[in-house]
Amino acid sequence: MRIARVRHDGPDGPEPRIVVSAGGSQPWVDLRAAERLRLEREGATAAGARRLAAAIAPGSLTAALEAGPLFVDAARRAARGAEPAALAREGAPLLAPIDPPAYRDFMVFEEHFRAGARRRGREPAAVLYELPVSYMGSAQGIIGPGEEVPWPAYTREMDFELELGIVIGRPGRDLHPEAALDHVLGLTILDDFSARDIQRREMTGDLGPSKGKHFASAVGPWIVTLDALRSEDLAMTARINGRTVTTASSATMLWSLAEIVAWASAGESLVAGTLLGTGTVGGGCGMELDLRLDAGDVVELEIEGIGTLRNRVGRPADDGWMPQPKRPAPSHAT
Amino acid sequence: MRIARVRHDGPDGPEPRIVVSAGGSQPWVDLRAAERLRLEREGATAAGARRLAAAIAPGSLTAALEAGPLFVDAARRAARGAEPAALAREGAPLLAPIDPPAYRDFMVFEEHFRAGARRRGREPAAVLYELPVSYMGSAQGIIGPGEEVPWPAYTREMDFELELGIVIGRPGRDLHPEAALDHVLGLTILDDFSARDIQRREMTGDLGPSKGKHFASAVGPWIVTLDALRSEDLAMTARINGRTVTTASSATMLWSLAEIVAWASAGESLVAGTLLGTGTVGGGCGMELDLRLDAGDVVELEIEGIGTLRNRVGRPADDGWMPQPKRPAPSHAT
Repeated sequence: MRIARVRHDGPDGPEPRIVVSAGGSQPWVDLRAAERLRLEREGATAAGARRLAAAIAPGSLTAALEAGPLFVDAARRAARGAEPAALAREGAPLLAPIDPPAYRDFMVFEEHFRAGARRRGREPAAVLYELPVSYMGSAQGIIGPGEEVPWPAYTREMDFELELGIVIGRPGRDLHPEAALDHVLGLTILDDFSARDIQRREMTGDLGPSKGKHFASAVGPWIVTLDALRSEDLAMTARINGRTVTTASSATMLWSLAEIVAWASAGESLVAGTLLGTGTVGGGCGMELDLRLDAGDVVELEIEGIGTLRNRVGRPADDGWMPQPKRPAPSHAT
Repeated sequence: MRIARVRHDGPDGPEPRIVVSAGGSQPWVDLRAAERLRLEREGATAAGARRLAAAIAPGSLTAALEAGPLFVDAARRAARGAEPAALAREGAPLLAPIDPPAYRDFMVFEEHFRAGARRRGREPAAVLYELPVSYMGSAQGIIGPGEEVPWPAYTREMDFELELGIVIGRPGRDLHPEAALDHVLGLTILDDFSARDIQRREMTGDLGPSKGKHFASAVGPWIVTLDALRSEDLAMTARINGRTVTTASSATMLWSLAEIVAWASAGESLVAGTLLGTGTVGGGCGMELDLRLDAGDVVELEIEGIGTLRNRVGRPADDGWMPQPKRPAPSHAT
């Protein structure tokens, strides 16, 4: 099953609506309409059916997932048998399929982290073979398919990153890898845009990437549920302005999807709707390929069985405020 | 004005309610009740007043702040003139005053980062004097005053951190420091609990602190609006089991509150309800003081003009799953 969100322009302004499809050439079904019609058939009044359907299929996927299996059951039912009145409107623009309450990005592709270490003339840190290491990204920086990538004033070095996105469907805590995949709704494509100049500077402060990452991460075009994917070996491709720059595979992950989810949940509550990124696949970013993005470039990321995520890079913002350097306090000055 | 949240146990289970006070010995007022009574006085029916008051004063502070100045105006009105029927119930347990959509922690106390560098036998990174450096924490790890600190299975080294918490009240983007404080609702106390052993290990992977931080950050007991504080010089104190271990001041910040907020908003949408931490004040954690927390220890953080945040450390969790080390792929083995 595929799960997406589309924009509906109504009398109260634009609103997201959840749409689902059995995949392939099967039609997209508007989940709220499908539930409303089903409830009416089962005896609800039109007003009652509308109220309940809105609660079951809100615009937020995170809010929808709060209902537990009830939501996924409704989505599967709608995707299987759509009546014409519940079909999604043709041509409605896709939005980011998720509005995650949290976004955590890992670094589990060995080729990517080895390339990073090589650039700095060293071996990769031993811990990368001992733990799936991660940092928190910004859930506020999520953009959808087709959305323009904002270019912050503080950077001149824009890059993309080709990653698998794991969407948590069911809350969990202290999960064992054997049970972890039961908590995954499905996979999507993640483009973790990166401002390399500020990232290099801030990382010398030892707190990890921050402003270099949080301005934009694109997600989409939809989520594909795990049962519809051979997730252990998916071809992963990146194109810039139509030219293929990366061909790789999810088979090269050092840590499995199950291990990623399990470690994310260790000692922490993993909330439904959370996005976990795998980190960049080997060769899946400009830094490894010795190329930079320019304003207007179109980045297309394709993952087998999922689809293609396409975003155009915006123009650099006008100069913004930049911090002015401080001096050490007199007692510390050397 | 002080803004807090208390737990109300009703027929639908426990629910948070926003309460406000003019400060000092002024009474706490239940904001939803105050608004309901005001709307009735202005001609709304009981049902209409209840519906509107619930929309203006939901249980989530982040949702309340989505209404813009309407919420803060209602809170100030309620705090000023409380009628007896709107007073908060005595003895209702305090909850975390915020349910932040995002939590970002900075490192702006020079003494703290110099101590960290000294332990590793080096000078602090130059970037710490060039930018207010930060990482994203976990909004899901927020706990409230009086809540027990969960102790994850993966750590044996539990620590506290005494910080000021900045609560964003109004959304903003690319703010100049001169305008930044207009976007701050107020300050609170933040205890950024830290698992030092896993933190030291994972930070060698260069992605910053992660599992070592995300399991718990305590916030409270309430928010004090900026107009009621001399934020440039607040005494900051930490006590463990009643013994004072830290006496410090907010005057030692290298970067100002305004600079922190401005940089957090550069190229990113700062959402109302966001929590920004200043990072640990000099001498404000066990790592600097050569002490560790044990299960059952009570950590009290006091900040002048705000109040005292008190949390007891829980018992270590039973052994959980830990990742098993991987070997480099044959093509990479050295």
